[in-house]
Amino acid sequence: MPITMIADECSIGVDLGGTSLRIGLYDSSFELQESISMPTRVGEGPEAVVADIAGSIDKLIAKHGVGDELTSIGVGSPGPINLDEGTLGQLPNFPGWNNFPLHRRIEEATSLEVYLECDANAAALAELKFGAGKSTNTDSMCMLTLGTGVGSGIIIDGEIWHGMVGMAGEAGHVSLAADGPLCACGSRGCLELYTSANGLCRSTREMIESGCTGALADLVYSNPGFSPLDVALLARAGNLEAKQVYKQLGFYLGFSLAGLVNLLDLPLYVIGGGLASAWDLFESSMFETLRNYSYVYRLAEPTQRLTREQEKTYVCFAHLGASAGLLGAALLPSFCKDGRPRKKENTSR
Amino acid sequence: MPITMIADECSIGVDLGGTSLRIGLYDSSFELQESISMPTRVGEGPEAVVADIAGSIDKLIAKHGVGDELTSIGVGSPGPINLDEGTLGQLPNFPGWNNFPLHRRIEEATSLEVYLECDANAAALAELKFGAGKSTNTDSMCMLTLGTGVGSGIIIDGEIWHGMVGMAGEAGHVSLAADGPLCACGSRGCLELYTSANGLCRSTREMIESGCTGALADLVYSNPGFSPLDVALLARAGNLEAKQVYKQLGFYLGFSLAGLVNLLDLPLYVIGGGLASAWDLFESSMFETLRNYSYVYRLAEPTQRLTREQEKTYVCFAHLGASAGLLGAALLPSFCKDGRPRKKENTSR
Repeated sequence: MPITMIADECSIGVDLGGTSLRIGLYDSSFELQESISMPTRVGEGPEAVVADIAGSIDKLIAKHGVGDELTSIGVGSPGPINLDEGTLGQLPNFPGWNNFPLHRRIEEATSLEVYLECDANAAALAELKFGAGKSTNTDSMCMLTLGTGVGSGIIIDGEIWHGMVGMAGEAGHVSLAADGPLCACGSRGCLELYTSANGLCRSTREMIESGCTGALADLVYSNPGFSPLDVALLARAGNLEAKQVYKQLGFYLGFSLAGLVNLLDLPLYVIGGGLASAWDLFESSMFETLRNYSYVYRLAEPTQRLTREQEKTYVCFAHLGASAGLLGAALLPSFCKDGRPRKKENTSR
Repeated sequence: MPITMIADECSIGVDLGGTSLRIGLYDSSFELQESISMPTRVGEGPEAVVADIAGSIDKLIAKHGVGDELTSIGVGSPGPINLDEGTLGQLPNFPGWNNFPLHRRIEEATSLEVYLECDANAAALAELKFGAGKSTNTDSMCMLTLGTGVGSGIIIDGEIWHGMVGMAGEAGHVSLAADGPLCACGSRGCLELYTSANGLCRSTREMIESGCTGALADLVYSNPGFSPLDVALLARAGNLEAKQVYKQLGFYLGFSLAGLVNLLDLPLYVIGGGLASAWDLFESSMFETLRNYSYVYRLAEPTQRLTREQEKTYVCFAHLGASAGLLGAALLPSFCKDGRPRKKENTSR
């Protein structure tokens, strides 16, 4: 027996991550009704994970008495995704999953129409509709997600901008320094090398290796697996070197934003991901650098940063935290119907 | 008596430049029928130039027997333009023209509906429809115009992307080197400082000042007003330093393109402006740098650069030369009708 009846439309989102898999049921106002989380069984292969997804959806549908009104679901996956084919690209954390037809296999396993999207884009959509962009009238924005790496999503006039091969929004791999450190993507000096969790730890080690002593050096030597949060705690306790590490992150983030503002002139830029929680530590250098390197920003700079001023460039932290990806996935069927058409595969549906 | 009758629709474009003003009449296939050129009377103020524009349009209309089917014209102007208000921003080459209501005044003087656009965007539209993009199926592209400065235009899904305050596409002022030379925009290391005519002359002088001797030094010392063409002639004659100047231009252009490709993943990038004629001198270093710094480009790299391959990132020189601006202006009424709405002023029309 269903415990709740959802009279009107409901939505289901799937957030496929490298470590955990989440499936959420939302009501017609996109309030989360229930979510199921489990470890992503990456090592057991994609079919096992598709089975987990389909099983969880069945559970949610049965428990909440969802009927025929649910015809489609949204799925957020790490990129790159071949959106035309609905297949996965080379995902660093999913060895052996290359070219897996995720779109088709979830459709076959659930008998539901699937909207597949890169997770950074799904999160951007959620922030636009229900997070940082909610109180604004804008339908264009860029979100930078500072996680293990740096993801980004660009939404223009309400549509996720995918680019030609579905690779648009790789702001994390725009080089900010031609002679910077080597990046796994083959380039040098990418934003990701300075503003991701891995990048911040690298910067910290570099500072220690250049001869810095004191509490930050103690942290790095005593705990080789230290996290950005450890560095943030030191910085908030007044450690100058730890503060400098975040100041440098703010510099590169502001430098990247300056390029984005000059190039795209969007009304809203949202900084999300785990590192955004250190906003207080990098905000000042980020805005200073943005101002120094973008005359378009200076033209449109808000006079007050605490209230949202319409028609000004607004840079702020994400409001939805870790739930943006799941909500964004659930939003896909509602907000991407008129979007960029995906080449449908020949399925029996 | 009209000398030719244009039965169907015709178009008129106005290309307002810092030195010359051109007005062109096009037939329904956008073949140029006649154009009028004259020096832009900048010093005599904007009303004198509006009178020149209206007078030339009247002449073309009378001479070609254009009737009531012509209801609107397109105007390309140097930016920045406040598109919402239809007014000019601070144009360096138009002292005293700030805030001039160009849109309204041309409408009043011609009794025609006016589509006002930044000249770099108009040129991009022309290249997309009748130039480098003509043989492709794409409706998205970015054009970089290497002139005195560097202009750029971005077209996404057939629409010129203006951004929030009409400043989008300032790729010329995206910084490529945080510690680079100072730019007039207040930033450092902007693309324009390396790849414009002024930028190339600056690079050349820098090379001479760093101790380079030979024919390039002779050129710079004997002719302080030397042009990029002078340097190109030396380079083509085998001068190594002159070759190096263009190689450096290619490096920065490729580095900028790498960022654009990673961020926007557009199918087409067009290099125009006077310096594009030195394509042979910078092509090699441009593509090498683009490849090195953009994994998205490497993913989508065309296997042959001489034929247009669909669904590949295509970087090429502009096809229309100096006529792109005028043609682009004439295209505005036809291709921007469904575009970003301009806030109409309260005119009597």
